Order: sequence, then C-alpha cells, then structure tokens
Amino acid sequence: MEREKALDLVKVQLTEHRYQHTLGVMETAITLAEKYGADVKKAEIAAIFHDYAKFRPKGEMKEIIASKGMPQDLLIFNSELWHAPVGAYLVETEAGISDREVLDAIRYHTSGRSNMTLLEKIIYLADYIEPGRHFPGVEEVREMAKENLDKALVKAVQNTILFLMKKNQMIYPETFYTYNDLIQKLED
Amino acid sequence: MEREKALDLVKVQLTEHRYQHTLGVMETAITLAEKYGADVKKAEIAAIFHDYAKFRPKGEMKEIIASKGMPQDLLIFNSELWHAPVGAYLVETEAGISDREVLDAIRYHTSGRSNMTLLEKIIYLADYIEPGRHFPGVEEVREMAKENLDKALVKAVQNTILFLMKKNQMIYPETFYTYNDLIQKLED
Repeated sequence: MEREKALDLVKVQLTEHRYQHTLGVMETAITLAEKYGADVKKAEIAAIFHDYAKFRPKGEMKEIIASKGMPQDLLIFNSELWHAPVGAYLVETEAGISDREVLDAIRYHTSGRSNMTLLEKIIYLADYIEPGRHFPGVEEVREMAKENLDKALVKAVQNTILFLMKKNQMIYPETFYTYNDLIQKLED
Repeated sequence: MEREKALDLVKVQLTEHRYQHTLGVMETAITLAEKYGADVKKAEIAAIFHDYAKFRPKGEMKEIIASKGMPQDLLIFNSELWHAPVGAYLVETEAGISDREVLDAIRYHTSGRSNMTLLEKIIYLADYIEPGRHFPGVEEVREMAKENLDKALVKAVQNTILFLMKKNQMIYPETFYTYNDLIQKLED
C-alpha cells in the first residue's frame, strides 16, 4: 500500500496529536530499518498502522479480544495493551493489510514477546523513541538505538517494567518474557 | 522439633555469617508470625532451615533439581534460586521435617510464587528485612512490615526485580507472577 493511502486511512482513526506521533514512528522506523537491514517498506506500513485501534471504544476492543481467538488474559491486564492485538485484527479486516510480519509488528508493539523479529523490534523501539516522545530515560534509549538495537530494546523494556512497578500496576507476562529472552540472548 | 536441635542441625551446614543471618531471620519471622497471626512454631522452624542448602555444591543441587521432579527451568535461571527448592528437599530427607507448610515456606523463600501462604510471606519477608540486612531500600520495607505485610512484600519483590534488572540478569517467571498476584490482590 502506498504511504499516502495508508496515512489517509489512519488519519481519520486518530487525534491530531496521535497522528503526529504516528508520523514520528514512521520516520524513526524507516531510519532503523535502513540501519539494521529490515524491509523498509514493511517498517513504514507497520509504523503507520501501529496505533490504528488506539481510540476504539474499550467495549469494542474487549468484544474483539473475546471473540477473535486472542489471549484472554489480556482482559485482566491493563487496557493500554488491547489496541495492539486489536489493531492487528482491524488493520487486516478493515484496511486489507495481509502481510503477517507487518501484522505481528503491530500486534506486539506494546507487550513485546519472546523471539521478536527484527521488524517487531524496530516498531516497538520506534514507538518508544520517536522524536515526539519526552520522558525520563528516552534520550538514553535513543542514543543506544544508534549503536545496538537489542541493547536499546532491553533498556526500553526495563524502563517500561520500572514505570509500571512505580505505579503498582500489573505487568503483562509477555513483557517479562520479552525481557528475559533479550537478556538471555545478550548473554550468549 | 525443638529450636536447639534445629539450630544444631543447621549450624554445621552454614558459615558463621550465614548462621547469624539465620538467627536474625528466626527472630524476625517469630515477630511477624505473632503480629500477623501465623503459627509461630512453624515460622521458627521454617526460618531456621530456610538456608539449609545454601552451601551445597552447585553440581549436587543441579542433580537434585534434575532428578527430584523440580521445575527444570530453574537450571537456566540464576543458581541463587536453587538452594530454596533443594533446601526443602534436603530438610525433608536429611532433617526429617515433614510439615508441608514449613517445606513450602523454605521452597519459595527466594522466588516467591502466586498465592503465597501467610507463612511463605513471612519467611520471604523475614529473610529480606532481618536486622543483619543492609542494602538500599531495606529500612523502608522494615517499616512497611510493621503496618502491612502484603505492601511490604510487594516492595521487597519490586526491589528484587529492580536489583536484577540493574545487573541485566534474567528474572525467574515465578517472581514476576508473585508481583502480579500481589498487585492484583492489593487492587481488590
């Protein structure tokens, strides 16, 4: 799908602020894909669509998670997680994107997972470090991303776990598995 | 088993430093058991024996984990975890302790687990806050333990996760599950 068509499809789903964030993720994902040898076109499309479901009503997301074979434990964890797998579903059914790698990059952009693909890592990280992001620790991860994708990703996941623990929030198991998997591979 | 006999059995297994730690855990566990209504005698015995296997050779611990029906994933995580389940096994087979609650308090004193019993919580926390412990954050947990056992425990588990993340070490899944389980119950 052409960039302009994809952006048109996404723009109507998002607030202006979130659309600007999406443009930042797109530019960052393209830069990372070029640097680390991923498919640049897939990175562009996954980035554009990554937050497609962000503003769907919770009830609609819950219904999709319950009825479309998604992990049911999502429903007992933070609803912030829901838009990623629901997004993958809607991007396929409403926007007609069928590329499995692109859909998985959307699906796992918030939780991460064990054995992330290069494209999944790029979208997760681009979402975390795009230029519009301003929070403690983001600049350190931005710098790391210029040197080592996996080390930057570990730091981003650690920061996410830390952020949730400070708020006494539950942490989705897949996020822990992402951390352990990345650490184990860094050690190898 | 009488306190003196238990202490005699444990003393020969430990360094002097670790024996003094054990006495601290015993006193703290008794205090917590009295305060929160646990079986004081079971708390005493579990505390005395909690580090029974601490100085067994790694090879022996590995062999016991592999052959005695313990979770095999222990072997890919930090060997610091091993002395707890191996200890429960040896305390049963060598010291003749058969009380399931006491053995489980020993078994889970390092990793924690979902749905910890009151006795398990007390041993985990006593091990963390006994007077001989000196590390950042311990005093805060000591103070919390005077008010609310579960909140103190959450803080101890959070600190442990944070400590391991700072060292880029893998975190045993049961420790994550402990955190999520405690947080979920605090929310209820």
